[in-house]
Amino acid sequence: MKRLLLAASALCLTAAQAQTIPDEVREEAEALLEAGMEDSVGYETVKQLTTRVGARLGGSEAEERAREWAEGYLEELGFSNVRTETFTMPYWERSYEYAAIETPFPQELEITALGGSIGTGRGGVSGEVVRFESLDDLIEAPMDGSLRGKIVFVDEGMTRTQDGSGYGVAVRKRSGAANEGAKRGAAAALIRSVGTDRHRFPHTGAMRYADEDAKIPAAALSFPDAEQLARAMELGPVTVSLDIGVKTKREVTSGNVIAEIKGQTDEIVVIGGHLDSWDLGTGAIDDGAGVGITTGAAKLILDHVSETGEKPLRTIRLVYWGAEEVGLLGARAYAEAHRDELPLHAMAAESDFGAREIWQMDTRFGEDKLPLRQQMIRVLARAGVALGNNQASGGPDVSPLAAAGVPVVTLRQNGWDYFDLHHTADDTLDKIDEDELAQNVAVYAAFTWMAANTPGGFRAQAQPQASE
Amino acid sequence: MKRLLLAASALCLTAAQAQTIPDEVREEAEALLEAGMEDSVGYETVKQLTTRVGARLGGSEAEERAREWAEGYLEELGFSNVRTETFTMPYWERSYEYAAIETPFPQELEITALGGSIGTGRGGVSGEVVRFESLDDLIEAPMDGSLRGKIVFVDEGMTRTQDGSGYGVAVRKRSGAANEGAKRGAAAALIRSVGTDRHRFPHTGAMRYADEDAKIPAAALSFPDAEQLARAMELGPVTVSLDIGVKTKREVTSGNVIAEIKGQTDEIVVIGGHLDSWDLGTGAIDDGAGVGITTGAAKLILDHVSETGEKPLRTIRLVYWGAEEVGLLGARAYAEAHRDELPLHAMAAESDFGAREIWQMDTRFGEDKLPLRQQMIRVLARAGVALGNNQASGGPDVSPLAAAGVPVVTLRQNGWDYFDLHHTADDTLDKIDEDELAQNVAVYAAFTWMAANTPGGFRAQAQPQASE
Ligand SMILES: [Zn+2]
Ligand SMILES: [Zn+2]
Ligand SMILES: [Zn+2]
Ligand SMILES: [Zn+2]
Repeated sequence: MKRLLLAASALCLTAAQAQTIPDEVREEAEALLEAGMEDSVGYETVKQLTTRVGARLGGSEAEERAREWAEGYLEELGFSNVRTETFTMPYWERSYEYAAIETPFPQELEITALGGSIGTGRGGVSGEVVRFESLDDLIEAPMDGSLRGKIVFVDEGMTRTQDGSGYGVAVRKRSGAANEGAKRGAAAALIRSVGTDRHRFPHTGAMRYADEDAKIPAAALSFPDAEQLARAMELGPVTVSLDIGVKTKREVTSGNVIAEIKGQTDEIVVIGGHLDSWDLGTGAIDDGAGVGITTGAAKLILDHVSETGEKPLRTIRLVYWGAEEVGLLGARAYAEAHRDELPLHAMAAESDFGAREIWQMDTRFGEDKLPLRQQMIRVLARAGVALGNNQASGGPDVSPLAAAGVPVVTLRQNGWDYFDLHHTADDTLDKIDEDELAQNVAVYAAFTWMAANTPGGFRAQAQPQASE
Repeated sequence: MKRLLLAASALCLTAAQAQTIPDEVREEAEALLEAGMEDSVGYETVKQLTTRVGARLGGSEAEERAREWAEGYLEELGFSNVRTETFTMPYWERSYEYAAIETPFPQELEITALGGSIGTGRGGVSGEVVRFESLDDLIEAPMDGSLRGKIVFVDEGMTRTQDGSGYGVAVRKRSGAANEGAKRGAAAALIRSVGTDRHRFPHTGAMRYADEDAKIPAAALSFPDAEQLARAMELGPVTVSLDIGVKTKREVTSGNVIAEIKGQTDEIVVIGGHLDSWDLGTGAIDDGAGVGITTGAAKLILDHVSETGEKPLRTIRLVYWGAEEVGLLGARAYAEAHRDELPLHAMAAESDFGAREIWQMDTRFGEDKLPLRQQMIRVLARAGVALGNNQASGGPDVSPLAAAGVPVVTLRQNGWDYFDLHHTADDTLDKIDEDELAQNVAVYAAFTWMAANTPGGFRAQAQPQASE
């Protein structure tokens, strides 16, 4: 009996060894975690990007300047294979936007056109406003022509949560208001901004037309203006005028900026953030922070590698994704350009949720690699990170990789106030806490090191190793 | 000995009686205080004003609509002698404003022209920025031509305090930056907004040229933009371009809206707030709140008077001051128009510091009327109001009355976050807490009732009554 147990435990040990982060790797990860807590490269990176470039809409000349800055900066930090992989894309930008209550209480309203919206045409549009408490209410509205020529106003709120889970529901109206309005003959669509603040900042963000032949202009009101419009409507019918101008180009160039720490094998671990931002703020929390966090982490690893002279098992590839906001265009271009290389992608993670502390690690590992989660969290728990589920998305720009079977991790940040600032003019550097950002750098550095040095990786094994 | 003491105390009693709020008046004030805590008229007033009119710059067509609304509203509430006393004034409004870093990091900056600033002229101005940590640093700068053609940037902060005492120092730069810059040949002046927030809202406010022949355009940067400009300057010389357009008219009409509760005598107690606001927000905390608070208080008193059929000793005059922001123009017009009546003004107080709770009562009473302060505070303490000094200003619009010897009271509100919103687009109704506003109504109602019904009033007696 004792002999049997010993044999069984030896078997288990063998199975476990195939799913083990070597002690040495864990210890190095712990050292990186500790060093990361004192990091200043991460914050310096966001500072430089947001100061030297500022707002950088996908496909814009400013985004191009961001790429130029990034290449020089990453070279200077000492990374290998620094390059930009360009791609082409359609371009949209706002020219002007104006809204006002026309009757009965004439006054301006703070709006911003949603990304991708058509303009109103010269002279604008005006119409009576019809308010819906939620997108679902609009969806349930009859197609009887009662909205013809009207301006639909979807006045749906958003729930504030730590994990940002309120966003998924709230963001539906960003495209839905215009598409459902257009189906019913409306002349334009207004939404209460997708956001959780109470400030006079409208939140922009991408919308997409469901029907090329039924496009109406779409804009977001700031919270106070949505309340103001609703209040005015309580007193009787309200007419609003909108005047929105946009410019589009069929094709411009954007790109992903890439830098590497070469590994011993052809396998790749991808981390990064997106380089583009919306046009209203300077894109500090979205996503200068992600760029800074992953750069700080990669630089810590680079310094470690330089000191020890020992390469990681896998290449660590830092990607500054281009044109994320306007439709994950950099992510798609990357997945396409690197299609043949995707099987070599051992892990991917994007930081794109601000700069507050990481509190949970979600993963998407092969079922037989789940024990690696516990082993990783033993290290990351030192920075306050708990273990989450195994249904991670990995972040928007690595979602095409996840879809292609690449294991991903989402290092979840506290998003309590992320949607206060998200896609507004108020997304600026001063909103970032250096210490909180350093915690992110620390966690990313430790995670990335373990991801790059765990033998066997994180995919489900195609063939059970035991049968060899 | 005992007899002597009794005589002395009888004497004291006589002296005290001349400075006593009658018990009945105090009890009525207490009832008003209690009723005020449940008030909804105050909030409803701000709501109507900010919704039906919105922003209402002094001298504008919107301010005229505010007066029209106010007259109808005050009539409807049942006040007597509702009327507008008009006056004429010069007019200024912004047409457009634009600022950007030109070199080396081209990007837009959020600014707002300061009230009264000249425009830049077509094509704007651009120049290298010279930063001063404080206005005093600029004042100490030599007059050696080194600022010729430059843009001076006064990057002075403001201290957050409960009583708003940080404002006095910080606001000096609003005129000072342009005036001191102009003396040294500067082409334009930028200031860090006079405010305590960290949001991307520039704060406007009036500035005044010291020298008619040395005017340069003056604008305020939001906090994040001031930080951004300072950060850019740490990396080397920075050129900024400004393009500001303004419109002025030599003479427009504004007015003070007045309503009354008639008293038994010719004496008058004045309370009110200013009806105008800056053009960026809807003027909820500045000064819709003051209009609402004093209207709620006056309406409580009106209802009390209607129920009892007993008029107050003095007429209670509710004044919605016009064109305060642009230079106390309504206040000056009132003092001028009512010059002969000023000796009959027994008390004046303006609410113009937001809608947060009142925590202290400052007064300016005759030296021999100081005991009335304690008697008033016995009532107001029930709402959490402490006794302050006897150097009150009474509020901006009653300062000409105070200067003419009218006793005044300042019911000090918690201004901790007042300068977060002050003179920004973010000054909107949602920032007001109904319960806190009701506390103000309660305190104003109780105070006003005591002010209107205390025999002998609050001025120093010209002749000691004892000598009669
Ligand atoms: Zn993002
Ligand atoms: Zn975004
Ligand atoms: Zn005011
Ligand atoms: Zn003001």
